[in-house]
Amino acid sequence: MRIHVINPNSTTAMTATIAAAARAAASPGTVIDARTGAGAPVSIEGYHDEAMAVPAMLAAIREADRSGAGAHVIACFDDPGLAAAREVAGAPVIGICQAAVQVATTLSARFSVITTLPRSVPVIEDLVTAYGAAGRCRRVRAVDLPVLALEADPATARARLLAETRAAMTQDGAEAIVLGCAGMADLCQWLSDQAGLPVIDGVTAAIRLAEALAGAGYRTSKSGAYAWPRDKSGDLAAHAGAA
Amino acid sequence: MRIHVINPNSTTAMTATIAAAARAAASPGTVIDARTGAGAPVSIEGYHDEAMAVPAMLAAIREADRSGAGAHVIACFDDPGLAAAREVAGAPVIGICQAAVQVATTLSARFSVITTLPRSVPVIEDLVTAYGAAGRCRRVRAVDLPVLALEADPATARARLLAETRAAMTQDGAEAIVLGCAGMADLCQWLSDQAGLPVIDGVTAAIRLAEALAGAGYRTSKSGAYAWPRDKSGDLAAHAGAA
Amino acid sequence: MRIHVINPNSTTAMTATIAAAARAAASPGTVIDARTGAGAPVSIEGYHDEAMAVPAMLAAIREADRSGAGAHVIACFDDPGLAAAREVAGAPVIGICQAAVQVATTLSARFSVITTLPRSVPVIEDLVTAYGAAGRCRRVRAVDLPVLALEADPATARARLLAETRAAMTQDGAEAIVLGCAGMADLCQWLSDQAGLPVIDGVTAAIRLAEALAGAGYRTSKSGAYAWPRDKSGDLAAHAGAA
Amino acid sequence: MRIHVINPNSTTAMTATIAAAARAAASPGTVIDARTGAGAPVSIEGYHDEAMAVPAMLAAIREADRSGAGAHVIACFDDPGLAAAREVAGAPVIGICQAAVQVATTLSARFSVITTLPRSVPVIEDLVTAYGAAGRCRRVRAVDLPVLALEADPATARARLLAETRAAMTQDGAEAIVLGCAGMADLCQWLSDQAGLPVIDGVTAAIRLAEALAGAGYRTSKSGAYAWPRDKSGDLAAHAGAA
Amino acid sequence: MRIHVINPNSTTAMTATIAAAARAAASPGTVIDARTGAGAPVSIEGYHDEAMAVPAMLAAIREADRSGAGAHVIACFDDPGLAAAREVAGAPVIGICQAAVQVATTLSARFSVITTLPRSVPVIEDLVTAYGAAGRCRRVRAVDLPVLALEADPATARARLLAETRAAMTQDGAEAIVLGCAGMADLCQWLSDQAGLPVIDGVTAAIRLAEALAGAGYRTSKSGAYAWPRDKSGDLAAHAGAA
Amino acid sequence: MRIHVINPNSTTAMTATIAAAARAAASPGTVIDARTGAGAPVSIEGYHDEAMAVPAMLAAIREADRSGAGAHVIACFDDPGLAAAREVAGAPVIGICQAAVQVATTLSARFSVITTLPRSVPVIEDLVTAYGAAGRCRRVRAVDLPVLALEADPATARARLLAETRAAMTQDGAEAIVLGCAGMADLCQWLSDQAGLPVIDGVTAAIRLAEALAGAGYRTSKSGAYAWPRDKSGDLAAHAGAA
Repeated sequence: MRIHVINPNSTTAMTATIAAAARAAASPGTVIDARTGAGAPVSIEGYHDEAMAVPAMLAAIREADRSGAGAHVIACFDDPGLAAAREVAGAPVIGICQAAVQVATTLSARFSVITTLPRSVPVIEDLVTAYGAAGRCRRVRAVDLPVLALEADPATARARLLAETRAAMTQDGAEAIVLGCAGMADLCQWLSDQAGLPVIDGVTAAIRLAEALAGAGYRTSKSGAYAWPRDKSGDLAAHAGAA
Repeated sequence: MRIHVINPNSTTAMTATIAAAARAAASPGTVIDARTGAGAPVSIEGYHDEAMAVPAMLAAIREADRSGAGAHVIACFDDPGLAAAREVAGAPVIGICQAAVQVATTLSARFSVITTLPRSVPVIEDLVTAYGAAGRCRRVRAVDLPVLALEADPATARARLLAETRAAMTQDGAEAIVLGCAGMADLCQWLSDQAGLPVIDGVTAAIRLAEALAGAGYRTSKSGAYAWPRDKSGDLAAHAGAA
Repeated sequence: MRIHVINPNSTTAMTATIAAAARAAASPGTVIDARTGAGAPVSIEGYHDEAMAVPAMLAAIREADRSGAGAHVIACFDDPGLAAAREVAGAPVIGICQAAVQVATTLSARFSVITTLPRSVPVIEDLVTAYGAAGRCRRVRAVDLPVLALEADPATARARLLAETRAAMTQDGAEAIVLGCAGMADLCQWLSDQAGLPVIDGVTAAIRLAEALAGAGYRTSKSGAYAWPRDKSGDLAAHAGAA
Repeated sequence: MRIHVINPNSTTAMTATIAAAARAAASPGTVIDARTGAGAPVSIEGYHDEAMAVPAMLAAIREADRSGAGAHVIACFDDPGLAAAREVAGAPVIGICQAAVQVATTLSARFSVITTLPRSVPVIEDLVTAYGAAGRCRRVRAVDLPVLALEADPATARARLLAETRAAMTQDGAEAIVLGCAGMADLCQWLSDQAGLPVIDGVTAAIRLAEALAGAGYRTSKSGAYAWPRDKSGDLAAHAGAA
Repeated sequence: MRIHVINPNSTTAMTATIAAAARAAASPGTVIDARTGAGAPVSIEGYHDEAMAVPAMLAAIREADRSGAGAHVIACFDDPGLAAAREVAGAPVIGICQAAVQVATTLSARFSVITTLPRSVPVIEDLVTAYGAAGRCRRVRAVDLPVLALEADPATARARLLAETRAAMTQDGAEAIVLGCAGMADLCQWLSDQAGLPVIDGVTAAIRLAEALAGAGYRTSKSGAYAWPRDKSGDLAAHAGAA
Repeated sequence: MRIHVINPNSTTAMTATIAAAARAAASPGTVIDARTGAGAPVSIEGYHDEAMAVPAMLAAIREADRSGAGAHVIACFDDPGLAAAREVAGAPVIGICQAAVQVATTLSARFSVITTLPRSVPVIEDLVTAYGAAGRCRRVRAVDLPVLALEADPATARARLLAETRAAMTQDGAEAIVLGCAGMADLCQWLSDQAGLPVIDGVTAAIRLAEALAGAGYRTSKSGAYAWPRDKSGDLAAHAGAA
C-alpha cells in the first residue's frame, strides 16, 4: 500500500520531519510517498497561507491519485483544501486535524488542542466545530511560537508545550491532548510520557486512518459535493454562443 | 495483532456472520477474537435490549483486555455500553456506529443511514447527534424488518434495502449510505455495486479503525470520564462507620 | 397516588436517605415506594457503575409498574437507564437530573451544577446537553468527594459544597444551583439558606414532577422509541428455520 | 394552594374555557384564579399581539403575586412575556409551551406540535429551540384556523386536528402530540383517544407543573436575569444632575 | 432618505445622545427622525422594562412607517420588540444588537460584548445565540453601571469600559468589541483609539445598515411570521355567534 | 467611495453582468471597480474551482486595497477565500452569501436559497450553518443548471427558478428567497414581482453593505485571525540556522 503525504508548505526540512513521523507511524509494508508544496508559503499560519498553498497541493494529489496512491494525507493541522482535495481524488483524503479529532473522541471524553500561534486558535476552533467535536474539545491553546521555531528552538518548544499541557489538565480537565501542528509530531511520545495522558499527533493518526480506509477499499464518493470537477468546455461554448 | 469483537446479543449465528465480515475486513495477520454476549437478548432492538446486554459485554471486554487484545469492537449499531466499555478497557474501544460515521464523514459530505426497525430511528439519530454528525446525516431510514429477519428472509431484506437506498439518493441527496445494523455486513458490497455509492458497513469500518488505533499504540485515557472504575471498599467501610 | 422511587445502587442507607427526602418532598396522600438496586454497585460513579446497576433497576420498575405505580423516579443524578426504563414502564419515568434541569430552567436563566467526583463532570455535561440546556448551564462543578463520603463526612461535604456554590455565584454568574447527586438531598435547604439562591435537589424536583404527571393521567408513549420491548420468540424460530 | 392563570388575550369566553380546563386538570384543593388580559387583543396570533398583551398581563401577575399566588400560568402557547413575568413574580411562572415541551420530552423521544395559523409556526419553532427541544420536535404543524374559530367552528377544528395528527404520526414519526394553542384544551382527551398517542395540552401540563413547583416551595431566582425590576428614581436624579 | 430611530425608553436626554450619534453616522442627505418612547421606563434594564416599552415603540413605528420612513432603527441593545416591529412595518426594521453582531462577524472572527449591568448578560447572550453568533462571541461582559450612569458619571464609565476591553483582549482573545448599550455610542471612537481594535457601536452600525436596506429598496416580508397583524373583527363576530 | 468587486472566475461576460448589477445597486457617487479573476476557472462550481480561483482573487484584493478601495465584495455565492481575503485587506471584505444571509434574516423569519447545481447544495448549507442561520434557512434548492447556462439559456433559467420559488413558498414556508449565484442578479426584480416575496440577490445586498461599512469607517480587525499575513523571512533564517 502506498500512502501519499503532502506537506502543503514549501519547507523541505519540515517535509522530512513529517515523512519520518509518517514512516514511524506506518505499518510494515506501507510506502510513504512524501511530497512538498511547490511554490507554497514556507509555513501555513492562517487563511492566506492556506489559500496560497492549496493549488500546488491539489496538483500533487491529482498526480499521486493517478499513479495509484491508496489514500492521501494532508499534513497541515488547518486541513487546508480538504474538501477540494476530495473532489480531485478517487482515493480517500485524510486531514490531520480531522484524523486527530476522530482519534481523540475515541480515546477520551474531553480533550484540548495545543497549536503554535494564537492567530490559529479561531481557525482550529472552527474546524473542530465543523467536525462536530465542539462539545468535546475543552479549549484550543497556543504556545505562541511560529511553526518553524518548533525545530529551530526545540528547548523552548518543549517547555511551552509542557506548560500548556499541564494547564490543559488542571484548568480544562483535558483527558487527552491533540498536537495542533504537523511540526510537533516528533514531540508526541515525549509529551505523553511527561503528562501521563494520550497525546495525539495528527500525522500519526492520519497515516493509520489512511491505511485503514485504503485497506478496506473505501473510495471518496463521486456523487454530490465531492464529484469530480466538471468539464466546462461545453458551457463556455454555449455561453459564448448565447452572448 | 488481536482484535476482540463482541456481538452483544446472544445469537451465535449472528456472531458467526459478524466474525466472517470482520475476518474479511481485517488485514493479513490480524486475529479476530469474536465473542457472543452470554445471556443477552437474542437481538438488540431498543434501549431495554441494550441495557440487558451490556453487563455480559463488559465482562467479555474486561477478560479480552486482560488477555492482551489490541482493541475492542462492539458489533451492534446502537453502540451499547460504549462509554462503560472504555472505562473497563485499557485498549481502545470502537463502536460500529461511531466508526461508520467517522468513515462516512471522510468519504462524503452528506450520508443517510438505513437500519432495521422504525423504533431504532430516534436511537440512531441521537447517536449521530452525539457524535457531532447531525449536520451531515440527511436522514435515518428503516427497512422495517427485525434484526433476525435479515438472515431469515434475505430476499426481502435486499429488496427493501435497495429501495431505501434509492430513496436516500433521490430524496435525501445522500452521497454515501451507512448500514445501520451489524447483521447487514454481508450485503455491503452488493449494495454498493447496485447503487454506485460508497456503502459503509460498521463492522468493516470498525475493524480497520481498531487496527489503526492498536497499531499506533493508542490506549484509552485513564484520566477523567474513562478512568478505571473506582475501588469502593474503603468508601463502604467509612460509610458504615459513619452511619 | 403511589410513586416508585428506585435507588439504583445497592447501599440501603442511601435508599433510606433518599426515601426520607422523597417523603419530605411529597404531597400529603402520596405513598413513596422506595426500592434498592439488588446486586448493584454500592454507588454510581461513572458509566460502568450505571451499566451494572440498570438491569436490576429495570426489574424493579417492571414490577412496580405492574403493581400500579403512578410514576417512577430514578434516584441517581446520572439518570442511568432512563430511556430503557421508559420502554418497560407504562407510567411516566422521571430521572432526577432531567427533573432538576427542568425546574432550574423554570426558576432561573443560568444555573450551575455541583456534583461529587470530577469524573462525573463530563457525564453530567453530556446529559445537560442532551436535555437541551447546554446554553443555560454555566458549569458543572465537583466537590471531589465520593458519593458515600457525603454521609460519612458531612462536615467536609458541607464546607466544599458551600465553597463551590460561592464560586458558582461569583465566577459563573449562576442564578440557581442544582445538586448533582441524590445523596445531597438533605443538604438542599441548608445550602439555599446559606447562599440566598434557589438550590434544586433532583429527588425533590422529581417527586413533585412525578406527582404532576401521574396526577394528570399521563402515560409513556408506546409508539416508537419507548414502545414495549418486542417479543422475539417468532424471530428466533424464523431465524433458526432459515439458518 | 392557589394558582393564578392568566389568559393574556381579552376574550372572556376563552378565559372561561381555559379556567374549565385548568380546574379539570388541578388537584383537589387547588384553587384556580383565572384572569383575563384587560385591554389586550382578542387573540394572540403573532408577535404584535403578544407585545400588546404583555403589559396588562404583567400587572395581573404582580397583583396575584402580592396576594399570595403559589404559582402563575401564562395560558397562551406563545409564552408571551415569560421572562418579564419572572422578573415581577416571586412565585414560579410557567408558560404553557415550556410546560408542554417538558412533558413531551418526558413521555416520548419525538413529538410534533399542532397549532392554529401558519404564521405561528416559526414563532413556536423558535420557542422550542430556545427550550432546547429542537432535536426532539419533529415538526410544528398548523390547522390553518384562527384561534377564535376553534370554538366557533368545532367540527372543522376537530377534523383538521385529526388530519394533522395522523400526518404527524405517519410522516413525522411523532410519538406524542403537543397542542399548540390554549384554546385546544378541551379537544385533548378526544384526540388522544382517536390517535392512541399521548396528546399534551399546555394548560393541563402547566397547571400540574405549577402545583409541583409551588408545592415544593420553589421560588423564582432573584439573582441575575429575573431579579426584581430596579428602582431607578436615583438614576434619574443623578442623570438630571449630570446633564 | 429618512430613517426613523426610536429610543424605546422615555429619557429624552438619551434620545438626544442617540440622535447625535445617528446623525454623525448617517450619510449626507439622510434625515434622522428620532423619537422617544412615550410613557416607557426611563431606561431598559431587563425583560420587564422591554415589555413596558414596546407598545409605545410599536405605535411610533406604525406612524413613522405610514409617513414614509425608509427604515426603522430600534435604539436599545436588547432589541426589544424587534419581531413585533417587523409585523407592523413595511420598511425594514433594524435592531442595534443584530446590526452590531452582523458588523462584528464581518470585521472579526471573535468578538466580545460589553454592556452595562450584569443582569443584562444572559439577555444579550440569548440574543447573540438567536442571531447565530454564539460561536463567534467570546463573552458578554458588564461594567456594572446603570444605563443612566453612563452620562451621569462619564469618567467612571470610561475607566470601566477600558478595563473590560483590555480584559476582553487578553483573556477572551477578542478581535473586536461590541458596545452593548445605545448610551455608549459617544465612547466608541475614543475606545477604539485606546484599544487599537474595531469597536462597534450598535447605533452607528444600524444607521448604516438601515440606509443600505432602504437604499436597495428592500421591504419586510409580509408572508409568514412578519405578515401584517390580522384584522380580527370577523373572528370575534363568528366567535360571539358560536358561543 | 470606491467599492472593489471581484468576480473570482475568469468569464469576463459574467464580470460585466455582475458589474452592471453592482452599479444598479450602488448609491449615486459610489464607484464600482469590477475585476475578473485572472487565470481562474470559467465558473465556480464546487471546492476545487474555489481553490483554484482564490490566489488570483487575493492578488486583486491586495492591489485594490492598496489603491484605496473602501470595501471589497467577493461576487461568488460560495464566498471563496473570504477569511483569507480579510487577512490581506484593511478595508472590510463582504461575501455575497454572508451579505444575502444577513439581509434575509433581517427581512424574514424563514428563507430558502436557490442555487445552480445540486453539488453546490451542501457547500451552501455549510456556509449558512457557519454564518449561524441554519435555523432560519428552510432549504437550499438547485435549478440544476450550470452557472454559465443562466445567461446562455435564460428562458429555462427563469422557468426553473420560478418553479423552485413556488416550491419554496408552498413546501418550505419560505418568506423570502435568496438567489444562490452571482449570475442570477439580473433575475432578481422579475422573480420578486412574480412571487410577491422579497428576493435577495447577493450582489445587491453586498454592494449596499459594503457602502454601509466603508461609509461608517469600519476596517477589518488586524488582531487575531485576520491579522496581516506574517513576514516569515526571520523564521526561515532561524530554521535554516537550526537545521
